[in-house]
Amino acid sequence: MITFTVQPIGILHCNLKTRAQAPKNYDESEHRGTIEIYPEFLAGLEGIRRGDTIVVLFWLDRADRSVLQVHPRGDTTNPKRGVFSTRSPVRPNPIAVSELLVDDINDTVITVKGLDILDATPVIDIKKKI
Amino acid sequence: MITFTVQPIGILHCNLKTRAQAPKNYDESEHRGTIEIYPEFLAGLEGIRRGDTIVVLFWLDRADRSVLQVHPRGDTTNPKRGVFSTRSPVRPNPIAVSELLVDDINDTVITVKGLDILDATPVIDIKKKI
Repeated sequence: MITFTVQPIGILHCNLKTRAQAPKNYDESEHRGTIEIYPEFLAGLEGIRRGDTIVVLFWLDRADRSVLQVHPRGDTTNPKRGVFSTRSPVRPNPIAVSELLVDDINDTVITVKGLDILDATPVIDIKKKI
Repeated sequence: MITFTVQPIGILHCNLKTRAQAPKNYDESEHRGTIEIYPEFLAGLEGIRRGDTIVVLFWLDRADRSVLQVHPRGDTTNPKRGVFSTRSPVRPNPIAVSELLVDDINDTVITVKGLDILDATPVIDIKKKI
């Protein structure tokens, strides 16, 4: 089986330290934090402005990659479903997709609002929202 | 620098063979194709139904990973911008995020509508749309 290598482009700093503290999804969150982009990727940020909504991809480095079915939203009264029909962090490739508001951008530091992601999570991509 | 390993969960089959044939984004596409999920990931599909919109992550295995600025939509009359403020396939980690309509699902084969992705592209994740 061919595999591919993901290189972090930055890291998230925020005050969410455990899953219990984290909102279930970005659309339920007012949490703020900062995305620190590594200097070698600075040129890639050209065009991102305060007030934009950006799509940020995170690599959930503490998620279990071996589980294929979960109780949605961690509620054991919900019947188990395949991870691909949920937004669970548990999945073979633990990538999260969040839509975040850019509160500020200063050189390689982006202040964002709407976080449901744990502190120190690697950032692997940023895109324009459609 | 720590890196992470992505394992394909499946592969796309469709009639888009070149970038010139491909729509610029999924929201501009009526193209149909099939996603073939590898048998070991079948349990993860439980709960996906015809008529759902799913978020599919692709690994763009033919994209240039070394470029940080592009002319948006490939139009050289557009000033160059950082790839992180665009949806260009060119980026350090060439992951595409598409919202696709499930036209049918049969065992490990999902027929989808809305493709802007080339034939034989690896699929790396599927999520519920928020």
